[in-house]
Amino acid sequence: MSKILVETSARHVHVSKEDLAVLFGADHELTVKKMLSQPGQFACEERVTIKGVKGELKNVSILGPVRPASQVEISLTDARSIGVTALVRESGDIEGTEGCTLVGPCGEVVLEKCVIAAKRHIHLTPESAAEFGVADKQIVSVKVETEDRSLVFGDVVCRVSEKFAPAMHIDTDESNAAACKGVVYGEIIA
Amino acid sequence: MSKILVETSARHVHVSKEDLAVLFGADHELTVKKMLSQPGQFACEERVTIKGVKGELKNVSILGPVRPASQVEISLTDARSIGVTALVRESGDIEGTEGCTLVGPCGEVVLEKCVIAAKRHIHLTPESAAEFGVADKQIVSVKVETEDRSLVFGDVVCRVSEKFAPAMHIDTDESNAAACKGVVYGEIIA
Repeated sequence: MSKILVETSARHVHVSKEDLAVLFGADHELTVKKMLSQPGQFACEERVTIKGVKGELKNVSILGPVRPASQVEISLTDARSIGVTALVRESGDIEGTEGCTLVGPCGEVVLEKCVIAAKRHIHLTPESAAEFGVADKQIVSVKVETEDRSLVFGDVVCRVSEKFAPAMHIDTDESNAAACKGVVYGEIIA
Repeated sequence: MSKILVETSARHVHVSKEDLAVLFGADHELTVKKMLSQPGQFACEERVTIKGVKGELKNVSILGPVRPASQVEISLTDARSIGVTALVRESGDIEGTEGCTLVGPCGEVVLEKCVIAAKRHIHLTPESAAEFGVADKQIVSVKVETEDRSLVFGDVVCRVSEKFAPAMHIDTDESNAAACKGVVYGEIIA
């Protein structure tokens, strides 16, 4: 049985073109720092502060390219620390979520909705989905074996697109719950 | 099948009598704030700051009573934030762990070894262990079903003693990885 690469997503922000202009100045373009595993996605040099009612998270990476709506992806640990409720959602699904404030070097943006804890998910190409025997939107479990904290993640959503590269994404709480170190692979249990 | 109560342990510190004297003054006695589920164990009014090489965690609860050796139990998220490596260990097993500094109102203590991320575990009485069909030191899995992030924790150690009350303990990373809310029960899979 082949296994899926498990990557840990640190807290990050996606920004709209309009919000980017407020945060970093008119006509500012995102600067690629590092390309990510998903084709076309990149970590940026630009960083912002996320402000909640109880605290803030400084120096948070923006992931590019720009999106139609700004979105804040933090762990539930992060959310608690700044006094915000983060709903567990798929990326892009921010209806009904709480907002927060983003602060950049040129200004700040008050977002009415934006904060999510990413629902754990697997990016798959049609070919890799066929290989694993799973379909788009299918909910699966993934077994991750580590030295100290092996576990089986349930409620993992599969997302299949030609634009993806095969990789499972979990957040830092989830990664720490499995004590993930180095390169980690998981076994998909359909 | 009966289920086990799953409790989330926030970061905390256990202190020796000697370290308590340095932190809070000679002959200081711990003040009970709240009794915990395990008989005789209590959260204290006294709080300390945990200092690592990269940062600090303020306002951390001490859990009483005093112990032979001071011990710092933090999540892997916490550990990373203050620049300390926390090994996943059972409580009391601090040989070979990293140290940190504790700061109290009367002084500070530099501990050479103390920092652990608690190995997930289940406290059981002999009666409840018999009921669940598990033995002291047995490693089991525990299935936790939540709305968004169900999972199965592996590498859970059972600890059986007349002095315990039946409860599983996980840390905040683990609790967040399961999106635990309110009162949570798990199913022991031996």
